[in-house]
This record gives sequence, structure tokens and C-alpha cells, in this order.
Amino acid sequence: MTSAAIRYADPAATLGALNDVINLQLAHRSVRRFQPVDVSGETLAALVAAAQSAPTSSNLQPWSVVAIRDPARKARLAVLAGNQAFIEQAPLFLVWVADLDRARRLAVRAGTVVAATDYLETTVIGFVDTALAAQNAVVAAASLGLGTVFVGGIRNHPAEVAAELGLPPHAVAAFGLAVGVPDPTEPAGVKPRLPQEAVLHHERYDADAADKHIPVYDERLAAYNTRFGLTGDWSSRVLDRLRGPESMAGRHRLRQVLERLGLPSR
Amino acid sequence: MTSAAIRYADPAATLGALNDVINLQLAHRSVRRFQPVDVSGETLAALVAAAQSAPTSSNLQPWSVVAIRDPARKARLAVLAGNQAFIEQAPLFLVWVADLDRARRLAVRAGTVVAATDYLETTVIGFVDTALAAQNAVVAAASLGLGTVFVGGIRNHPAEVAAELGLPPHAVAAFGLAVGVPDPTEPAGVKPRLPQEAVLHHERYDADAADKHIPVYDERLAAYNTRFGLTGDWSSRVLDRLRGPESMAGRHRLRQVLERLGLPSR
Repeated sequence: MTSAAIRYADPAATLGALNDVINLQLAHRSVRRFQPVDVSGETLAALVAAAQSAPTSSNLQPWSVVAIRDPARKARLAVLAGNQAFIEQAPLFLVWVADLDRARRLAVRAGTVVAATDYLETTVIGFVDTALAAQNAVVAAASLGLGTVFVGGIRNHPAEVAAELGLPPHAVAAFGLAVGVPDPTEPAGVKPRLPQEAVLHHERYDADAADKHIPVYDERLAAYNTRFGLTGDWSSRVLDRLRGPESMAGRHRLRQVLERLGLPSR
Repeated sequence: MTSAAIRYADPAATLGALNDVINLQLAHRSVRRFQPVDVSGETLAALVAAAQSAPTSSNLQPWSVVAIRDPARKARLAVLAGNQAFIEQAPLFLVWVADLDRARRLAVRAGTVVAATDYLETTVIGFVDTALAAQNAVVAAASLGLGTVFVGGIRNHPAEVAAELGLPPHAVAAFGLAVGVPDPTEPAGVKPRLPQEAVLHHERYDADAADKHIPVYDERLAAYNTRFGLTGDWSSRVLDRLRGPESMAGRHRLRQVLERLGLPSR
């Protein structure tokens, strides 16, 4: 099977433009089981350099990253992020921080204000630029043979995470990233994605044309899930996950928590 | 100069872990001048496959992308995004859409609700996952010799952009991405970033230790800007850009606009 066929769980899927970089991207999978091998400081520096090389709105660079290796701190973060044990097991846990405080500190030192940091638009820039950077780190890690998985659960308790990491106000942990050498015994694969026709539109958005491709994907994902002892097709899993506040692990309070952290996002 | 030395505008900067992928990432620059050469459908498919291979929270895949080649539509979008002429000039303009409507449509067809889509947390997931995907497309494009630049200006007038692209409710254009073969006559370089020590923390956030590295960066960026006929160091540019609503090109209204677009983000 080609990398495209695996990505789409569709033996007929092919791509006309391919190279080593794109094949590396297509082969991405989440890694949640790691070998007991450290990630060196040199490797960490390469991941951060890749992250910093991602585009950033107006060169604001509105993010920071906290590298965590201390087992006790990883254990506490694992609990805060929904009891995800692999956070403890990963040799390196990176917490990516949407950070508008660096600009606030510049303003304080210059005796001026940066009132734009109070608006949702600027919070969005913070999250988006943090994500662009972190994704570059994910690809760089893969190129070095490392596995990663994002941890959105770090937003289950943003105030407690901020206290644990000593974050200043005007900053929030956007997501975690566990990093390490993959343990090949982990039962996991490349998760199939929606057919391209379901997400790619030409000139104008066409919901009916796109959604025609969801039923075949539901079948493919259900078959994939069965391989790993899981049940449910894609649609039913999306509906479960987005049912309401009760399915959000406390994250329905994000807006109020951001306000308390000095990111009113108005 | 090594790729790290160029990225940090610091002849002494080196990285111990490097390979072709990371060198490609380090060499990133924004491209705003393109050769009059089309981007093929095959290439577009590879970019979208790379994008879809990025991680996504709970496999929600909460994004869509609209590929625009029609010159008249590109011209209208160029105006809406702050009169950025390179949007018209780019052979391919991708509008990345944070899209919670696909899940809403699933819910309508299933006779249920996805109330989580009303919360800021879910809007954030939409923007973050869209960014992770788009950054993979940026790296894939670079690997194919293409240049790109993100266009945050697409958020200057989100309602008008939604109308132009026929977006459904519960969806918003997160950012644009101009794509094409770089015109080598463009006067542009690799923009230096903050020293790593200014963004990377160990175990806990340390603002004083990080900010010590800003003055040398201000000097480096001012020197870089001078090369391209621009003035100002990094700090002064950040303070200008974030001064207040008047420096936000209308985007201080994002929260109200999202509400009108069916993304109350509460």
C-alpha cells in the first residue's frame, strides 16, 4: 500500500506529487508509548528551532514553550490533563504556551500599553501561531525518528497548569506535546482521514458535494477502529465528542478561565 | 552561514541535530511575489493530503479548505484582506476554514445536537486544528519548491469573506495562504527570530531569564530591517502592532462577527 492509500484507507488513493518530506507527513501517527530513552538537549534545540521557523503573524512570535523532564512534575501534569499516563512515561513533555505576556512586559518597560491583547482576535493569533510552531516541531521530531502526541487535555485545568509552570498572566497553556522514541509494541496505526473531496472545495464551499463522501469514510474508520478493539464510525464519535458541556472534560469553562488568566478575549 | 545562523541572525548559532527536513523548515521565508506558473491539481492534492495528515483533536477534522484560482474572486478577496495585491498575483489562493458546520450537519441528519460547538473551547479547537493542517501544507509546498505566505487579513472582514465563498454558518475563514513558484527577484530574506533562550523554558517559566535575550534580538532585527529599507526594532514593531483596536484593521470585532456567523464562542 502507498502512503496515500494508508492515509485514506483507500487502496485506490494515489498522489501525483510525492517526495520524502510529504511521505513523512503522510505516515504521521500519534505515539503514546515510548522507549525509556532520553531526548537530548541538542534534539530539543532542533525542535524549537524548527518551531521558531514557522510563520508568525507580523513576526509577533506570541508563544513560549516549557520543556518538562522532571518525573514528579510530569506526573502532576498527567493528572491535570485527564490522567493520561503516557505523559509521565514520555521522556520529554513540552507545554506550548500562547503567550501575550512577553508583549505586555515590553509595554510595561516602555511605559505604554498593548490594548490589542485584550481582544479575541489576539488570543486567536496566540493559539494559531503556537499551533503553527508546534506542528513544525512535530514534523522535525518525526524526521529525527521521534514520536509525538498532542495533549489537548492540558486545557482541562488551565489555571492549575499555569500555577504548576509558573506562567505569568496573559499566557495560557495551549496544548501539551509528549515526545520520545516510539515503542514499537504500541498497538496503533495511521488513522484514516476523510476523503479529500469531503474537505477540499473549489472556488466556493459546497456542503452537499462534500458530505457525499462521509458514508464511505464512516465504513473505513469503523473497520480501522475494529482492528484496535474500538467501536463506532466517525460520525457517531464526532457526535459523542461534541454532544455538549458534559462531553468537554471541563473545557466548556475556557472562556471564564481565560478571563481570569488575563486574556479577556473580548 | 549555516541555516541556524541565518535563522537567528547569529553567526554563532549552531544545531547539533540537523537533517534535510529541518534545514528546509529553518530556511522558511514568506513569499509574496510569484512567477506566472500554475500550481497543478496534483500538487494541490499533495498539499491537502499533507494537511489532512496533521494531528487533529479527537479526529474531529474540524476544517475545510477552499482553493481559489478564479482571478476575479482572488481580486475581490485581495481587497477584503486589506488590499494585498499578491493574493491576486498568486496562481493559487487557499482559504483555510475553521469548520464546525460539518459536525452540525451530521447532528441535523442524526436528529441530535452538538451543543459543544457553541463554546470558545471548540472554536479554539477549530482554529488550532486548522493551523496544524495548514502548516503541514506549508512545509509540503516548500518541499516541492513552492513559496507561500499566510494572510491573516482574511479576518479583517470575515462575514464578507464567508459570503464570497458561500460558507455555511458555524464556519469562519481562519486565514488565507497564497501559493506559487517564488519569483527570485523578490527582495526578501529569512526573517531572524528571537534567540531560543527567549522562548524556551525548562520546568518553569522564567520571564527575567528569557527577556534578557530581547535587546540583542532588537539589534539583529533592526539590522535585518535596514537591509530591506524598513525601520524599527522588534520591540517597537510589536508595540505598534498591538497598540489597541485602532491597530487591528477591524479585527477587534472578531468576537461579535463570530457570534453572527454561528460561532458564539461562549
